[in-house]
Amino acid sequence: MNTLRIVGLSGSLREKSYNTSLLRAAKHYGVQHGLEIEIADIGLLPLFNQDDEQSVPAHVGALKEKIEKADGVLFVTPEYNYSIPGVLKNAIDWATRPYGKNSLNGKPAGIMSVSMGSLGGARAQYHLRQILVGPNMYVMNHPEVMVAAAHEKFSEAGELIDESTQKKVKEFLVAFAEWVRKFEK
Amino acid sequence: MNTLRIVGLSGSLREKSYNTSLLRAAKHYGVQHGLEIEIADIGLLPLFNQDDEQSVPAHVGALKEKIEKADGVLFVTPEYNYSIPGVLKNAIDWATRPYGKNSLNGKPAGIMSVSMGSLGGARAQYHLRQILVGPNMYVMNHPEVMVAAAHEKFSEAGELIDESTQKKVKEFLVAFAEWVRKFEK
Amino acid sequence: MNTLRIVGLSGSLREKSYNTSLLRAAKHYGVQHGLEIEIADIGLLPLFNQDDEQSVPAHVGALKEKIEKADGVLFVTPEYNYSIPGVLKNAIDWATRPYGKNSLNGKPAGIMSVSMGSLGGARAQYHLRQILVGPNMYVMNHPEVMVAAAHEKFSEAGELIDESTQKKVKEFLVAFAEWVRKFEK
Amino acid sequence: MNTLRIVGLSGSLREKSYNTSLLRAAKHYGVQHGLEIEIADIGLLPLFNQDDEQSVPAHVGALKEKIEKADGVLFVTPEYNYSIPGVLKNAIDWATRPYGKNSLNGKPAGIMSVSMGSLGGARAQYHLRQILVGPNMYVMNHPEVMVAAAHEKFSEAGELIDESTQKKVKEFLVAFAEWVRKFEK
Repeated sequence: MNTLRIVGLSGSLREKSYNTSLLRAAKHYGVQHGLEIEIADIGLLPLFNQDDEQSVPAHVGALKEKIEKADGVLFVTPEYNYSIPGVLKNAIDWATRPYGKNSLNGKPAGIMSVSMGSLGGARAQYHLRQILVGPNMYVMNHPEVMVAAAHEKFSEAGELIDESTQKKVKEFLVAFAEWVRKFEK
Repeated sequence: MNTLRIVGLSGSLREKSYNTSLLRAAKHYGVQHGLEIEIADIGLLPLFNQDDEQSVPAHVGALKEKIEKADGVLFVTPEYNYSIPGVLKNAIDWATRPYGKNSLNGKPAGIMSVSMGSLGGARAQYHLRQILVGPNMYVMNHPEVMVAAAHEKFSEAGELIDESTQKKVKEFLVAFAEWVRKFEK
Repeated sequence: MNTLRIVGLSGSLREKSYNTSLLRAAKHYGVQHGLEIEIADIGLLPLFNQDDEQSVPAHVGALKEKIEKADGVLFVTPEYNYSIPGVLKNAIDWATRPYGKNSLNGKPAGIMSVSMGSLGGARAQYHLRQILVGPNMYVMNHPEVMVAAAHEKFSEAGELIDESTQKKVKEFLVAFAEWVRKFEK
Repeated sequence: MNTLRIVGLSGSLREKSYNTSLLRAAKHYGVQHGLEIEIADIGLLPLFNQDDEQSVPAHVGALKEKIEKADGVLFVTPEYNYSIPGVLKNAIDWATRPYGKNSLNGKPAGIMSVSMGSLGGARAQYHLRQILVGPNMYVMNHPEVMVAAAHEKFSEAGELIDESTQKKVKEFLVAFAEWVRKFEK
């Protein structure tokens, strides 16, 4: 089987972000499951302004091209104010514009989230699911990975050290690879 | 009765934005209903990064101070990808940080939306309502103003010319002034 | 190509329900697109009570069996209080129980809605989408059919007479047939 | 201060329901905080049918009258399929009908939830919040009570025995009493 190319987006720009750490763990584990995850930086995108969309800024163009070439997208996101961060929504807004050039169209997607609290980012996940109906992404249903109490799951250096979470992430990736293949042309 | 000070936020940065036009109309009509609406620009905020929140950037500090001094917040927002724009969410994320310095806490809020399509931004409104539970804003329930088919409601110059919409906006503002007064200390 | 068997559920029990009328129109048009839609009555189900789920009531058992034999489910629903009717949710709750006997698991689904107002049931659709993630249904993204101003679209006798809506329903059914086939074993 | 009359609704009909147990605990504690909580049974309502709403069934009429006389409503609900149970939505649908006789209009509301899983019913709470915007209820924002791992929090006999949860419920009731008073005429 061919390797699947996945673009990975973290919703947090913090250097020691737990979400980026989880995305790195997924990238590492993904190799064994036929997933080549490339982490794309969304921290250099400007704020979306429709006046600028006809000749998109360079960082936007690069992100759109990466996604268009990929077989799927993996979102790993914190929850800010009961939804996804503005930073991640801003990247999605750029990725779907201008009209007729929606780079997300028809791509399969997966979602994981990490939070310090007990819900593990659940509210962000369901907002993201609704958001992705718009650009016509196919979001995997299960298993859902919501990592609560983040500070207990990662080392100081940002390594995912909790075994139960490691197992869940691996199961997620197995299911995600299968899900992405279902939509291969 | 004293005049109520309201911060108005538009979710669109486009120069000829219908939403900003609607916010300007609300500012204009608001005077007669005891509302002094100051439109705050959210287009100069950086993307939120938790590493930067301890000494907030100047534009963030100015926005937070404006909101803290205000009696309420009026959101006027387009719908991008079935939710609010990343740009607006980014402003909300900054406004609620750092931990313990949530500038939105306990403020009453109102929401209006404008879109080109037939739903008038409904999906954005309900996401915004959930988002604002987090920082403890009190969002008015009714009347709901969702302006569909925007291009038929505004002049080339951005003036709200549709009489039925004008009437709805005025009714909204009357109810909003009453709602904000309910939460006055 | 084999005919696809679809269970059709209407969220309204009203005899002259616009939603049931739309479902009947879909059943009629569906034949040409390889869809055999059987309309199942959910009005005779009792209110869900977990104490009764081990030996399910007869009407529940019949509904579950129909769905299990089907290739997909078509929901046509009004919007009550900004969500789907309790009646429809009650049917979904029964269909997924008891634990380990979720009849909806892995089935593709489609959603249409009709309302008297201008939103056409949009709020109900997005709640239903979140609900169906739980039992692992695969809900088609587009096209979305939300029929507003229902009284202008149907005849006294309940026939769908609006040509533009007829066209949308037919396009929906073509896409739905394709969507269901994607998940055939 | 006068005693506040609250109608309490449990979303579960199961005899040993954790949610009904939590509602009973709230009723018990509420007395000290000026809340007189009357638990109303929603298990005898028929499925909502608009054809029957002009002369409402007896159980519906009794529920509507109770709510109309009350100062507020307390919802305690499990989560079924990522939302509130059909049973509870059915009660809300009846309570708001027929048109012009919405018994929930302008009433303050509070929400608690209990689940066996780790999210404590969070998804049900946010759906319920959106639902209650329709009939114009004023839902308290914080504190939010979501009781996870229910089997560890209640005794065999249905008593709330977990001290941390007891404390949260009491804090909720103090805040709820204050919230309801804010809307007293």
